[in-house]
Amino acid sequence: MTITVFGYPTSPYSRMVYYVLKELGLSYEISQPNNDEEIKTPEYLATKHPFGKIPYLDDDGFHIYETRAIARYLVNKYQGIKNSTVLIPPDVQKAALVEQFISVEISYYTQSLYKMLIPLTHIEIDLKLVNEGREELEKTLDVYEKLLEGKDYLTGEFSLADLLHVPLTSIAFSAGEGDLWNKRPNVSRWWKNITERESWKIISTENKSTQ
Amino acid sequence: MTITVFGYPTSPYSRMVYYVLKELGLSYEISQPNNDEEIKTPEYLATKHPFGKIPYLDDDGFHIYETRAIARYLVNKYQGIKNSTVLIPPDVQKAALVEQFISVEISYYTQSLYKMLIPLTHIEIDLKLVNEGREELEKTLDVYEKLLEGKDYLTGEFSLADLLHVPLTSIAFSAGEGDLWNKRPNVSRWWKNITERESWKIISTENKSTQ
Repeated sequence: MTITVFGYPTSPYSRMVYYVLKELGLSYEISQPNNDEEIKTPEYLATKHPFGKIPYLDDDGFHIYETRAIARYLVNKYQGIKNSTVLIPPDVQKAALVEQFISVEISYYTQSLYKMLIPLTHIEIDLKLVNEGREELEKTLDVYEKLLEGKDYLTGEFSLADLLHVPLTSIAFSAGEGDLWNKRPNVSRWWKNITERESWKIISTENKSTQ
Repeated sequence: MTITVFGYPTSPYSRMVYYVLKELGLSYEISQPNNDEEIKTPEYLATKHPFGKIPYLDDDGFHIYETRAIARYLVNKYQGIKNSTVLIPPDVQKAALVEQFISVEISYYTQSLYKMLIPLTHIEIDLKLVNEGREELEKTLDVYEKLLEGKDYLTGEFSLADLLHVPLTSIAFSAGEGDLWNKRPNVSRWWKNITERESWKIISTENKSTQ
């Protein structure tokens, strides 16, 4: 059995996939494009990812793209096999709440955070968009502060929903923006809980980068 | 057993939930806010949806928000009980491909379509954003045209991934934008396939509206 993750090792989206793999106790190989042009070639678009993105996963010949779809696939197939880590609980209602917070992560958290981090990846910066991202993120984190009152994790227990927040947020911390999280006591505690896990420490140390 | 969907009956997101419920053969009650202010009240934010959105679902006291999380919950709990419709297949690899296309729907399809449809819901229109949405959507539909070559549905068989595209796209058709879909033969065929289902005909007739 060979699992290969194709993507830049320092990309937050690749790291979401590595983080899931490590949590499930799975070993994997890292493969990466030679340059940004490679993922826009007709061959890549036709056979790897039709929208020209990374990462994609190859699991013994089964090919899948889109980070969160990859994450769910790995959980559905491998959860409980190598260790007892639970990322999506088998209980239907508990699983629904994990999915609820994955949707919150995509819609209210990552979209605004991504806008705020534009200066790290773009030469031409649209400051209006960056400020919009920061304002939206402040509002989102205010809601998180309430949601995390008396809870260690979004659903109460560590899950895939918490995990998916880590790689992009850690870039914000590297960029000196950590105060947005640290100034909110519940959010700050949650951030500590979701980053102190052994598997994340390994990933963030193995492939050091500012982005 | 009482399932209640809280949201505007003409909202595309409410309609995604109705469409799932009808496909699974479930009956449900519709409840709606009296006005836009109601979903921003402290009470609504604290007990219904912390980000002040619709829809949410109440299933015999179990409360869940975020449209696609609601959809997955309904499929996990009720698929195969009232009829034989399959929206997420039990096979792990087939399910992964449905999830892949749900992620495509969110990231490349709905985001751009939503921008393009801003004039329908906003008085002050940012034309730059609208045009950006249209350009992005043209590119996305070009990819769909390739993905749908020789296929009736995104994964080959009708699934939750197809279904989630319908309500927002039908608004684009009502707004006279149908040519974007119709001019692409595979996309046009797919659109016919996913809208000719009995359950969608009922929903789109029961709650008529231009948006």
